[in-house]
Amino acid sequence: MSVTETQPEPAAPPSEKTRLRRYNWLAKYDRDTINAIIDAGIVCQVGYVIDGMPYVTPTNHWRIDDYIYWHGSSASRMLKAQQQGIPVCFTVTHLDGIVFSRAAFNHNIKFRSVMAFGDAELCEEDLKRNALQIFTDRLAPGLWDYARPPTEQEWKASKVLRLKLDEVSAKVSDGLPEEEAEDYASARWAGSIPLRLVQLSPVADPKLAENVTMPDFVKNFRYGSRT
Amino acid sequence: MSVTETQPEPAAPPSEKTRLRRYNWLAKYDRDTINAIIDAGIVCQVGYVIDGMPYVTPTNHWRIDDYIYWHGSSASRMLKAQQQGIPVCFTVTHLDGIVFSRAAFNHNIKFRSVMAFGDAELCEEDLKRNALQIFTDRLAPGLWDYARPPTEQEWKASKVLRLKLDEVSAKVSDGLPEEEAEDYASARWAGSIPLRLVQLSPVADPKLAENVTMPDFVKNFRYGSRT
Repeated sequence: MSVTETQPEPAAPPSEKTRLRRYNWLAKYDRDTINAIIDAGIVCQVGYVIDGMPYVTPTNHWRIDDYIYWHGSSASRMLKAQQQGIPVCFTVTHLDGIVFSRAAFNHNIKFRSVMAFGDAELCEEDLKRNALQIFTDRLAPGLWDYARPPTEQEWKASKVLRLKLDEVSAKVSDGLPEEEAEDYASARWAGSIPLRLVQLSPVADPKLAENVTMPDFVKNFRYGSRT
Repeated sequence: MSVTETQPEPAAPPSEKTRLRRYNWLAKYDRDTINAIIDAGIVCQVGYVIDGMPYVTPTNHWRIDDYIYWHGSSASRMLKAQQQGIPVCFTVTHLDGIVFSRAAFNHNIKFRSVMAFGDAELCEEDLKRNALQIFTDRLAPGLWDYARPPTEQEWKASKVLRLKLDEVSAKVSDGLPEEEAEDYASARWAGSIPLRLVQLSPVADPKLAENVTMPDFVKNFRYGSRT
């Protein structure tokens, strides 16, 4: 696909909730930027309210088109609450570095984050099965066909929730110090130390059956290029 | 210090909120484990409720003794709400790997996470100043003395919140697949791909003044050993 074929979607007008107030020059509202940040991670944080109290649960997520999906056990307290269609706050954050500044209060982090608000929605059976298959193959292409398929019992014990990406915004910091004009002239060093999530060599389960070899989807796994 | 001198604190009886129900064999309630997970990160997620709606804000955190601290601008909507002493849910999560299992529904992630509940508390002036200095020197030892000190205006523009670690639990997965007994015998590979957050070489601010050299706290910075 040539570059000219890729038209970024126009920036959606943010809602009052998703409009960034603090550091608003870091805000991004275009869907390509938002999707790339969501797709770069596999662990999100979902916030919700039960009996007036805040809960934040780290969980796996994946995106299909304009929806974020997450899953869990049918017995999960979080999912039992969310399947009622309650409001949730979805966030994903990537820590990309530490920024040292000339002024003590300007140290910062380099990061990419997305925040989305909306009502959770329980996926019905067909959508659930399709979404879980897509999730599995996103983790590693070919993983769904390789693994032992779920039993009906296992299907029943699993739920999938989703959230439509309507009220959503991203925040991207470039890692450069932001200083007062007079501080730039000072004889102090400033800059950043980038951080990266890297993968190490695969580790086989000690309980592996004899003569089982590592499948290609493990050999070829690249964390940063799953999508 | 010899091994016998290090007595882990007894596991606190978890509250109904922090008692892990799902995957409860991964639960850890001892303070050493909890502190190590908190201290290994610099970005947490704080959940809170405004007008009945859930909000989750990624922010920097640090721990001093039995308190988690975070900071922000005095003008921040989050801090203005939290300084009233409202309930918050603090979480920190480290993604340590991806676990491939023999059964499609047993894929998992290797992770360490902490969750804490309580009421946020606004730090008064002396505590705020002390806590921010400790935070800065935790980022890199010597950073506080090296940087241009905050003006009274900057001090005024900053707030620090904290949360006492009373209702707190950790969850640690070891990265081994957990399978049905019959699946272990199958001719399918299972294992994990570890993930690590690593640091790259420092990048100097392009706006550096002439003849400014990199300070030792940058040269010696090691992300994993800040505390």
